[in-house]
Amino acid sequence: MNTKTLAPSVSFADVEAAAQRLRNRVVHTALIENAALNERLGARILIKPEVLQHTGSFKFRGAYNRVIQFTPAQREAGIVAWSSGNHALAVSSVGARLGIQATILMPSDAPVAKVEGARKLGATVRLYDRKTENREAIGTEIAERTGAVIVPPYDDPHVIAGQGTLGIELSQQATALEATLDAALVSCSGGGLAAGVATAIHALSPNTAVWCVEPEQFDDTARSLASGTRVGNPAGRQSICDALQVQSPGDITFPINQALLAGALTVSDEDVRQAIRIAYEDLRLVVEPGGAAPLAALLAGKLDIRDKTIGIVLSGGNVDADKFATYIQQP
Amino acid sequence: MNTKTLAPSVSFADVEAAAQRLRNRVVHTALIENAALNERLGARILIKPEVLQHTGSFKFRGAYNRVIQFTPAQREAGIVAWSSGNHALAVSSVGARLGIQATILMPSDAPVAKVEGARKLGATVRLYDRKTENREAIGTEIAERTGAVIVPPYDDPHVIAGQGTLGIELSQQATALEATLDAALVSCSGGGLAAGVATAIHALSPNTAVWCVEPEQFDDTARSLASGTRVGNPAGRQSICDALQVQSPGDITFPINQALLAGALTVSDEDVRQAIRIAYEDLRLVVEPGGAAPLAALLAGKLDIRDKTIGIVLSGGNVDADKFATYIQQP
Repeated sequence: MNTKTLAPSVSFADVEAAAQRLRNRVVHTALIENAALNERLGARILIKPEVLQHTGSFKFRGAYNRVIQFTPAQREAGIVAWSSGNHALAVSSVGARLGIQATILMPSDAPVAKVEGARKLGATVRLYDRKTENREAIGTEIAERTGAVIVPPYDDPHVIAGQGTLGIELSQQATALEATLDAALVSCSGGGLAAGVATAIHALSPNTAVWCVEPEQFDDTARSLASGTRVGNPAGRQSICDALQVQSPGDITFPINQALLAGALTVSDEDVRQAIRIAYEDLRLVVEPGGAAPLAALLAGKLDIRDKTIGIVLSGGNVDADKFATYIQQP
Repeated sequence: MNTKTLAPSVSFADVEAAAQRLRNRVVHTALIENAALNERLGARILIKPEVLQHTGSFKFRGAYNRVIQFTPAQREAGIVAWSSGNHALAVSSVGARLGIQATILMPSDAPVAKVEGARKLGATVRLYDRKTENREAIGTEIAERTGAVIVPPYDDPHVIAGQGTLGIELSQQATALEATLDAALVSCSGGGLAAGVATAIHALSPNTAVWCVEPEQFDDTARSLASGTRVGNPAGRQSICDALQVQSPGDITFPINQALLAGALTVSDEDVRQAIRIAYEDLRLVVEPGGAAPLAALLAGKLDIRDKTIGIVLSGGNVDADKFATYIQQP
């Protein structure tokens, strides 16, 4: 046992403080329950639809909680951030709302909807090549040269605490329905959402098992949890989950997830396509591949949920129409 | 002025009674506000997403309010109903929940998703030819032969009162946001939703103008309001709004709408396609053509809404994936 496990860098009090900062600033997304889906899965599924959040993903929460704590000098200097898309949109929107200039680094193969969305929100977007350029090096150079403040996508205590506010809401909304969550499932890339939600749910509902869900091809957290130490993904792997492609678990997020998660599940691209299709048919929600991973895990039978009550987060809904069109049509 | 205008067949007390019957039986759909849409339209748009209702449309409300009032003998005899789809799904689901057998007449060109959905819910579906058969005659014959009770799609006071519960929620939810609705827009086919919502909003928020929205090709309510008497649509017309194709306004609904509506707006198929696309991009909601008509009217500039607060109902989200795929992709 290491000291990080004993004293995690994000406490429940940090998440509660974030919830205070975010009050009336984020969408308090209403919990959805769908009879068709419950019947399909033989369980009670309580759905947290973060596709209805500002900019279409949970990322607004963490970005807002980080940027609202900028000093006046930092506000003047601006934001620099990197992201495959949803964090970019969130940071751009937070910047626009607070009157702070944002520069965003996005991979050149990011969904057009996400790149255009960030530009429409007033951000300066600089594209980089995922294979040949290092986004952290470029971002750090910009920060050092201009004084702009880096808002990391996940490896930051304030960002993690912001994402955790979703866990407080999920837990309280379940309680309001007189439901007790046996488990809660969230998507996992760098692990910020998982760490934040696990921190909140561990405090409010300690008997709820929190699982993270990764693409099979980017199962770094699953392998890291198994081996007890952070391991990365081999180069050259691919997944339809553009939002869940990370090199390795975060330095700050991993110890929290190691301490609090029940484990990590993995899903195939075909599992994810099926989940997007079912979310379209049963829920009438637009869910992007990375956001559909928890539903994919349930539909693919990765967890024994029969007659249980399960919370899932549909974490994002930004997907180019031509791709969504292929996902929802039967193969 | 006629007696129907003086004493409408559905009172606000009827809608309130329906709301009591439906408590904890329908989804109290959360009002959605979207910054991107507000900016696009230069107005504050409060969205009632009935695509998240049971069976994916507002129709569950009216069907439930009618069927829950069956006598024991009527429950035994079963339900007969006709519908292009959403009322069929709603009646099938209500029947399944209350253990009452339902027989549904649907046009042979109804969306496959709606026909299959009704069958999956346990209803007996009988297809008829929209051009050569009269669904009301077939339904009446079944009712007379078997004793089954007809649950009409709109021309029934209990059905209208049930749909009106949505108006109560919309008004109360707007008030909770300290917003005053300048106008509210709902789709219009037979006029049951419009009549119910107008009854509720007229009582709770008398300065709110309630508009109904029709396809250009099925503008029977617009022409009926203009002429002061019910007129029908010429045969052979077509629209992508499969849910909004009616022969003429209802016998019961029209006098209510005549007394309470601000007027009727019309939208083209292209207006509707644009609205479906924007709902996909900005709202991440799946909206069917008929359900997108109010948003289509706003996007097409059919009403001066600048700096106003407008409530819209997205009334349904049941649309075959191959069609939805074409709607969301730029032409």
